[in-house]
Amino acid sequence: MYLPYFDTEQWMTDHEGGALYNLTDTCIRPFSLGELLEMDKEGISKDVVLDYGSITGDVRLKKELLSLYTTGSEENITTASGCNQANEMVMLALLENGDRLITYTPGYQSYIDLPKSVGCDVVTLPLYEDNGWQPSLTDLRKAFEQPVKMVILNMPSNPTGVVFNEEYLNELIALCRKENTWILADEVYRDIRQPSLSDLYEKGIATASLSKLFSLAGLRFGWIKGPKEVIDTINCRRDYSIISTGPLVDTLALVALRNKEAILNRSYQRIETSKTIIHEWLKEEKRCTWVEPAGGTVSFLGYHKKTSSAALCEGLQKRYGVFFVPGSAFGYEYHVRLSLTAEADRLKEGLRLFSRYLDEID
Amino acid sequence: MYLPYFDTEQWMTDHEGGALYNLTDTCIRPFSLGELLEMDKEGISKDVVLDYGSITGDVRLKKELLSLYTTGSEENITTASGCNQANEMVMLALLENGDRLITYTPGYQSYIDLPKSVGCDVVTLPLYEDNGWQPSLTDLRKAFEQPVKMVILNMPSNPTGVVFNEEYLNELIALCRKENTWILADEVYRDIRQPSLSDLYEKGIATASLSKLFSLAGLRFGWIKGPKEVIDTINCRRDYSIISTGPLVDTLALVALRNKEAILNRSYQRIETSKTIIHEWLKEEKRCTWVEPAGGTVSFLGYHKKTSSAALCEGLQKRYGVFFVPGSAFGYEYHVRLSLTAEADRLKEGLRLFSRYLDEID
Repeated sequence: MYLPYFDTEQWMTDHEGGALYNLTDTCIRPFSLGELLEMDKEGISKDVVLDYGSITGDVRLKKELLSLYTTGSEENITTASGCNQANEMVMLALLENGDRLITYTPGYQSYIDLPKSVGCDVVTLPLYEDNGWQPSLTDLRKAFEQPVKMVILNMPSNPTGVVFNEEYLNELIALCRKENTWILADEVYRDIRQPSLSDLYEKGIATASLSKLFSLAGLRFGWIKGPKEVIDTINCRRDYSIISTGPLVDTLALVALRNKEAILNRSYQRIETSKTIIHEWLKEEKRCTWVEPAGGTVSFLGYHKKTSSAALCEGLQKRYGVFFVPGSAFGYEYHVRLSLTAEADRLKEGLRLFSRYLDEID
Repeated sequence: MYLPYFDTEQWMTDHEGGALYNLTDTCIRPFSLGELLEMDKEGISKDVVLDYGSITGDVRLKKELLSLYTTGSEENITTASGCNQANEMVMLALLENGDRLITYTPGYQSYIDLPKSVGCDVVTLPLYEDNGWQPSLTDLRKAFEQPVKMVILNMPSNPTGVVFNEEYLNELIALCRKENTWILADEVYRDIRQPSLSDLYEKGIATASLSKLFSLAGLRFGWIKGPKEVIDTINCRRDYSIISTGPLVDTLALVALRNKEAILNRSYQRIETSKTIIHEWLKEEKRCTWVEPAGGTVSFLGYHKKTSSAALCEGLQKRYGVFFVPGSAFGYEYHVRLSLTAEADRLKEGLRLFSRYLDEID
């Protein structure tokens, strides 16, 4: 099953190493194992036995995961090796050759290319920058003139940070309900104070992980929340794949979730500080356009120059060590992914150097 | 992509909980996290930062993995979330709708049903109990009369414990070389003193994990060793799936591999003790047939009774708490999977109770 290179991930892998100012990382400064173990006041992790563990997921863990949602019970949850692998399992479990899907662009490549590898037809609807990266209801209605097996969305979105407005979401759900269409909502960037698609729509399947706002990408822990029939099908597929996420990761994930308030507040503070810095910088920097993200850790910064985004990112990193993922990795030119995760001093200095680089190029 | 229930894994999940005498577990008594950390004399695990880590795998880790093979360099290795997920990645990366494959029966279900889910045609060749579970060269030559994209084998095999003899392997490799056929060798049960297919054949792809002989299933750590072109394709696919195995698991895997001699010797001793106990028991128990496994932790025990294997296993567990996976889960009746992993006293008593149960049934 052919898959092309994953441009964003490949760019990260190839360029992340040498970065002095990483202004594109999707994760707030990750915790160390030591820091995480210090949060484990009950000492539940030290005696973990490294067997397969509870195959469909630790019950205490599922309870904690459910606290991030307003509906559902333990049979509506299963675990995965990160959110990406959760998405892969949902897509491979539910999609068949010939199915027709909707997703959005600019967006994360796997929502297009994984379904294509199964033989699906993927319709991409544009996000409109001049409308705050909101999609259009007209486009949506037109796409629903033919049968749609699944809508894949990412909310908040990578790279735009958009959260679809209520009017759009309501109509999307109404159309899906009428056509019996699944919604796969990648909520890896979700602020848990915002609603989950899985709580709004009975055929909504939400995926997420501890990688982004929880700052624990290294656990490779994700989950899926959705209708019982979907979770059952995925638990069947899991036996052909990861089998379980294992008791080590499950237990450490439980520790993290029991400390979610402190962990998430740290992230929310960083995000607010970053937004303030970016707004300050934009007061002086008139060659860039920016839509403040409604949630998550990433945004999509436009620049008014002729240099392509890949050339700009290569040149900028070489010249000043400032690291962005280019818009081209998301199929969208003259933009870079600007994240809200860097420490304040790094972000300020990185943006200052970026402005200086814009002086130097066409 | 439809997949049926995975009978073996489902049976394990449904029955493992209540077992007093688990005589079918594939793993030697798993280590605890504490025991593993005690092996970390250099203290490399405590400061692990929980970011995505080295995306295509820690270089020190790859070096240790290569020490389990006689050929290859770091570009011939990538990591996975267990051996099962490694197999899934190999199959999804290399197989296309319409490909024709060969595998063996009785065997592990995923070698048949995962390729089928991609739309492949799977030819199953029998393993012959009366020939020590060896396959037949005649069957093989006949299967190669049409094009074969991949041969999937499991050596030592689950559930039979067979290692194909040299004559068979040589002819298999010769046929594959002539037809440009991949061999996917699931070597999760391999005794590292035995050769790896990936060292014998230039299009051989070996998968393995720390789950079985390393007693660390809870790490969910596996790997793939194969030709660079395959590893590159799989690293591309990994970006759509697990992305990385993460620095926590990678570091703990490194600790385990640096202590492989002690860990594996513990396992080899358990296996030898179990074999002695089984041979002793068989001297008195004439209603059973057994081929001593050439490697690994499992074997396939035949019994001469009319009761089906599923009914026998259900009844035996209910009556005496002795837990086997029935042959039916491997598509082969009047057998049970007998593993070599139980503690000596448990194994002796479990076999004694099994004999008593055979007295009681038809």
